[in-house]
Amino acid sequence: MTNDESHGQGAQPAEAGARQSTQVAIIGAGPAGLLLGHILGQAGIDYRILEARDKAYVLGRIRAGVLEQDSVDLLAKFGLDADLKANGLTHHGIYLQHEGERHHIDFAELTGRTVTVYGQQALVHHLVAEHERLGSQLIFEATDVQPTQIESTHDGDRASLAYTAPNGERITLDCDYIIGADGYHGICRRTFPEGTLDVAERVYDFAWLGILADVAPSTDDLIYALHRDGFAMHSMRSSTVSRLYLQVSPDDDIANWSDERIWAALQTRLGTEGWTLTEGPITEKSILPMRSFVVSTLNYGRLYLVGDAGHIVPPTGAKGLNSAIADVALLAEALQAHYAGDDTGLEQYSDKALDRQWKVQHFSQWMTDMLHVHPADGSAEQSAFDFQRQLGQIRYVTSSHAAQVSLAEQYAGLPFVDAR
Amino acid sequence: MTNDESHGQGAQPAEAGARQSTQVAIIGAGPAGLLLGHILGQAGIDYRILEARDKAYVLGRIRAGVLEQDSVDLLAKFGLDADLKANGLTHHGIYLQHEGERHHIDFAELTGRTVTVYGQQALVHHLVAEHERLGSQLIFEATDVQPTQIESTHDGDRASLAYTAPNGERITLDCDYIIGADGYHGICRRTFPEGTLDVAERVYDFAWLGILADVAPSTDDLIYALHRDGFAMHSMRSSTVSRLYLQVSPDDDIANWSDERIWAALQTRLGTEGWTLTEGPITEKSILPMRSFVVSTLNYGRLYLVGDAGHIVPPTGAKGLNSAIADVALLAEALQAHYAGDDTGLEQYSDKALDRQWKVQHFSQWMTDMLHVHPADGSAEQSAFDFQRQLGQIRYVTSSHAAQVSLAEQYAGLPFVDAR
Repeated sequence: MTNDESHGQGAQPAEAGARQSTQVAIIGAGPAGLLLGHILGQAGIDYRILEARDKAYVLGRIRAGVLEQDSVDLLAKFGLDADLKANGLTHHGIYLQHEGERHHIDFAELTGRTVTVYGQQALVHHLVAEHERLGSQLIFEATDVQPTQIESTHDGDRASLAYTAPNGERITLDCDYIIGADGYHGICRRTFPEGTLDVAERVYDFAWLGILADVAPSTDDLIYALHRDGFAMHSMRSSTVSRLYLQVSPDDDIANWSDERIWAALQTRLGTEGWTLTEGPITEKSILPMRSFVVSTLNYGRLYLVGDAGHIVPPTGAKGLNSAIADVALLAEALQAHYAGDDTGLEQYSDKALDRQWKVQHFSQWMTDMLHVHPADGSAEQSAFDFQRQLGQIRYVTSSHAAQVSLAEQYAGLPFVDAR
Repeated sequence: MTNDESHGQGAQPAEAGARQSTQVAIIGAGPAGLLLGHILGQAGIDYRILEARDKAYVLGRIRAGVLEQDSVDLLAKFGLDADLKANGLTHHGIYLQHEGERHHIDFAELTGRTVTVYGQQALVHHLVAEHERLGSQLIFEATDVQPTQIESTHDGDRASLAYTAPNGERITLDCDYIIGADGYHGICRRTFPEGTLDVAERVYDFAWLGILADVAPSTDDLIYALHRDGFAMHSMRSSTVSRLYLQVSPDDDIANWSDERIWAALQTRLGTEGWTLTEGPITEKSILPMRSFVVSTLNYGRLYLVGDAGHIVPPTGAKGLNSAIADVALLAEALQAHYAGDDTGLEQYSDKALDRQWKVQHFSQWMTDMLHVHPADGSAEQSAFDFQRQLGQIRYVTSSHAAQVSLAEQYAGLPFVDAR
């Protein structure tokens, strides 16, 4: 258990103040919470989204940037893809590179599926704008959110939570269900009573240094490269903004990385004969820790977790945002079924979501371990073995049709599960 | 570098005694050395096989038991498959099992290829018998073998080695090439001069307890099982002899494992509903350490390594014997080309053999890591993560056609490489 985990606070007694009601209370206005609200709303289900941060902060967060085919299809199905269609970049594959040798893995050819490069930030912008257009109950700066009743012991029980509205008023919100879309650091996971939730976790010996640069990408598809100095990646946000990453030590300091040093390392690790990496002004740089994290259940009583509140993947393979969307698709269908009189989907939500999630965890770790230099544990023989074995793995993958189909079907996305 | 490694003894000066000559001196009468002799002999190339142990010891060694499709085809090509055809069991796939759920991976259906269950011991018996029938220069109890000249600096240079014949006579053998088929503990790898060979190595936190039992196998195809208590496997040697394995700690003692305890553990780890594991008398039991080991080059001067002398895999996936046969196929072709005037194959042997070998190392580690319980490093969260991720991996593999094709094509065997 990590230091910042503290389970078992349990639900607190209801507080005095205004008493209001909705059907589904969604905590967190990240992409998962915003999307869930839209789907419920379209089904005629009443909801309220509570977000502790202010709107500018939520709109400013830079996160993931690759959508799986099923994520794109889901947004289209609910009419939430106008901006994505205008600004998303359809990618047919990725490049896998080792020791200056670059291989294209063509998802479209291998599986008939593609991914779409589209920043999470742009998705959040669009989902917030749509909520505002609809006049949704999307409340920013709703602070001190506290679930006060999450048990589901008697028929007719409802859940409730308390929060402080932007005007300072303490509000008690009665609801049928509370959805924890409040991320890894959120309150919802910590509300599970002691002993009802276990944690599985892996912390990595490396981190990513990520930059945004105002320069046209030097590649059509994303490049994932294993180099003796460490992993490097060339991604993008648009036709004029590049996103690039370097493997660094998790205890490295961004202050050690001048723009010159970053570009030099990228040139070395991404370099191949006859190809040029164009440099440009770096507008953002930071070091991102890496973690694999999954809880043993996404449900207690009338509380359900989606996305980062329940699971975290390392960024290799771009599964974080897509996992959140997969959860939302499953839970939205289960909630609709509930209001149509069938609770099977809600009962099975956690098992089904976690079954898919563990496959995704496997893929994320497989990509991560294949592409990162594993820090020496004191034995030169072990380091040599790890690196050479990884080269053998990449050579196998790039020479095997079946292995490429397997990579492609996982990268473009395992199918979303059906709730029933 | 392991404690038992000591490079740089270099080739020793020639010694007094009888001076004899052959074209290719093969050190070691394991399956690799015996097979290479047969192929060279059929091509009219003169050879001598020197084996330090006596014949009974060589015939008594129990080792691997699964031949890849290309291994079977190679033995057939050189007419060495009479016993294999009579006693080998063609297997169309394997079972992959987790938590009592057993899935069949059908190699034949997935790739059109099969494997053959046939003990290495039976193969060695047959190859020795054939050498004796042909009157080959196959010399057991040839002790204190020492390469004395392996450099290849001048045209017309020859190699030489010294050994003590069974009658006590010290013999110097001049030859064109020395082939190190003398296994992990052999002299040949240690003959590489200091600085000409690096080692890549991984030692595992677990070992296999293997038994032979006089009982008909309870399965048609091999079963590989991941269980919370550890890996278990049901293999076989014939229709009346079963071979079974249990993951144990590498510092465990076979004295701790009564027959009763072994069968109880096998029943627990291999058990599935409606299936019975039939027990029988255990005729052999031992604990086998696990290691991944690859040298940086298989060639120095006139000395070439094949099989375990150059690389070791953990047993999961049955790649040790097949890797040795793949080396022999490549080197035999290169030696034949040499005597036909083309040295390209010899020059490229090490690179080509190691390129295939590193793919095989990847597969062996992939199978091993998927199926073994990784000992706790002190964190319950990490152990939970490892085990759940492995379950996710097996569930993905058993639900994906592409992943199964990938497993099948590697298990049934990546193609042997062509020498030119």
